Amino acid sequence: MPDNPEQAPKRTDVNELGEFGLIEHLTQGFPLHNRSSIKGVGDDAAVIDNDGLLTLVSTDLLVEGVHFDLMYSPLKHLGYKSIVVNLSDIYAMNAYPRQVTVSIALSNRFSVEALDELYAGIRAACEHYQVDLVGGDTASSPRGLIISVTAIGQGEKDKLAYRNGARVGDLICITGNLGAAYLGLQILEREKRLYLENPGIQPELEGHDYLIGRILKPEARRDMIEMFAKNRLVPTAMIDVSDGLSSDLLHICHQSGVGAVIEESGVPIHPDAQLQALQFQLDPITCALSGGEDYELLFTIRPEDVDRVKYLPDIYIAGEIVPAADGVKLHTKGGHIHPIEAQGWKHFGSAK
Amino acid sequence: MPDNPEQAPKRTDVNELGEFGLIEHLTQGFPLHNRSSIKGVGDDAAVIDNDGLLTLVSTDLLVEGVHFDLMYSPLKHLGYKSIVVNLSDIYAMNAYPRQVTVSIALSNRFSVEALDELYAGIRAACEHYQVDLVGGDTASSPRGLIISVTAIGQGEKDKLAYRNGARVGDLICITGNLGAAYLGLQILEREKRLYLENPGIQPELEGHDYLIGRILKPEARRDMIEMFAKNRLVPTAMIDVSDGLSSDLLHICHQSGVGAVIEESGVPIHPDAQLQALQFQLDPITCALSGGEDYELLFTIRPEDVDRVKYLPDIYIAGEIVPAADGVKLHTKGGHIHPIEAQGWKHFGSAK
Repeated sequence: MPDNPEQAPKRTDVNELGEFGLIEHLTQGFPLHNRSSIKGVGDDAAVIDNDGLLTLVSTDLLVEGVHFDLMYSPLKHLGYKSIVVNLSDIYAMNAYPRQVTVSIALSNRFSVEALDELYAGIRAACEHYQVDLVGGDTASSPRGLIISVTAIGQGEKDKLAYRNGARVGDLICITGNLGAAYLGLQILEREKRLYLENPGIQPELEGHDYLIGRILKPEARRDMIEMFAKNRLVPTAMIDVSDGLSSDLLHICHQSGVGAVIEESGVPIHPDAQLQALQFQLDPITCALSGGEDYELLFTIRPEDVDRVKYLPDIYIAGEIVPAADGVKLHTKGGHIHPIEAQGWKHFGSAK
Repeated sequence: MPDNPEQAPKRTDVNELGEFGLIEHLTQGFPLHNRSSIKGVGDDAAVIDNDGLLTLVSTDLLVEGVHFDLMYSPLKHLGYKSIVVNLSDIYAMNAYPRQVTVSIALSNRFSVEALDELYAGIRAACEHYQVDLVGGDTASSPRGLIISVTAIGQGEKDKLAYRNGARVGDLICITGNLGAAYLGLQILEREKRLYLENPGIQPELEGHDYLIGRILKPEARRDMIEMFAKNRLVPTAMIDVSDGLSSDLLHICHQSGVGAVIEESGVPIHPDAQLQALQFQLDPITCALSGGEDYELLFTIRPEDVDRVKYLPDIYIAGEIVPAADGVKLHTKGGHIHPIEAQGWKHFGSAK
């Protein structure tokens, strides 16, 4: 019998590498063999050429107790969100999702009725975004629920927006607002703690609809992609904000070989998020930088395209691309300059 | 806070539906919205039209303790197999896999070195089958290892072999041999039991290389798809034998609206499997019918194509497609007639 994995002679903890380090470590040394493989690991989605339209593929694995907590996440919302976060990756390539596959592993504590709730949410997302469920797999799991979603999309060759296309002088744009999902999660976590300490207590969620909606039922910005097409705007680089502005901006900067300056005053933050951050004694800009799961779009445009963007609703110009040597920095409202470092949610490690 | 899923008013156990019943139940009521979605749930792979070649997508979720046992499955073999089983689904459409995505969730008992072993196997499979790793996701898991693989392939419109194309009079063909993987698993399970009862004991695996290789390191039949192309043969229907001949033949029959007669004498069984079945006091044909994981191809051809198949190596004509009213039956060597019923491995329920 082979040795148990625990007893391998050298043992490096996966936490030493972190999630992105681990992916990079594991996927190095995988050369691409096929002419059709245009883009492999390292962007929002893989890109495949089928001699016609380009095919995009994006996949996510959601694990109970790591990515979601069924104590406050209704199964229907969970199903909806599990689809939306994958569609968001395809939109973030300036392309359109068309199909999804959904695989689930579940322990026998889940009834068919519970699964029906999950799939009602999946169906609602498929309806809303007009994508087709075309496959999947179900399996039992010794413990908990695991959801694996793959989204498949279509895009045009000269319209895709990769992470590596930002150039010095480009303007940095953000859609919607950032930090609200993180604050919604903090409210849910607080109420969960109170409930666990005293199960008789009623959760106080009134007045927090917007923030809680942002974490439990996010939407992907299809409207933006459609608006780009209507206005003939092709971002030079784009990513969806799933790990927080810091982490996702750094992805664009690293892959494009550039630096960036973000103006704190240019980062859109919802009034409810402003208020709630202060109640939690958090700095709102920190929530925007280091929170995550907002699923807004962060993108760069050529300076000559500024007029195409300036009058579009719900798009905010937040900064500028600068040479790599100038680093990635935040200009605060107070006139200070801070380096921006990756502080996205870590799923490895004890922090959460 | 929402109700716990356990407390839902009506509770149907997932075991009541079974794996295929559950998939059917969950995926009903998902209409297809996109012109590009040619085939959704219900075949080896989904089929997508990109105005050029067709794109095929197949996905599998492998759960530790359900689909594999790390006590006897080396991580490298597990990585290899997790890719191969997905490629097999694409070949079973008479198409070629080109890309894969691999997502893993793992508990912190796995070291980076253990993951390197897993990925060495994944890399070996990608090399051998010339497919590209183009994406994936990693996450932590509260317990055990979960692997989700999606394979993406290309096929030509008039060459795909679906499950629903078998017609009365077609001949039923099987590649390679069946039942060996099941017997390999029985040997491993026996040695595991002995080892757990007496950890000092050395496993007796000598002389069982072939059977154990079939379960731990299966191959997909790319060679057959290439041979079909060379001989201009397009099967009328095809499926890979992952759940056992019974279960997979029934898929073809149900979807094609036909019946089938299988001759026991026509079902290829390896001499090692014959011998081992008898030692376990099992009927070899039962292992072929109800075992699984052989990843051979089961396909049907028009009777006029028989000459194209008869002289090809490693293909066996095992029966004939008959009207649905005649059922799905086995003619035994002893002259008896038995109905064929689904007896593939069930991953739901207590049996395994």
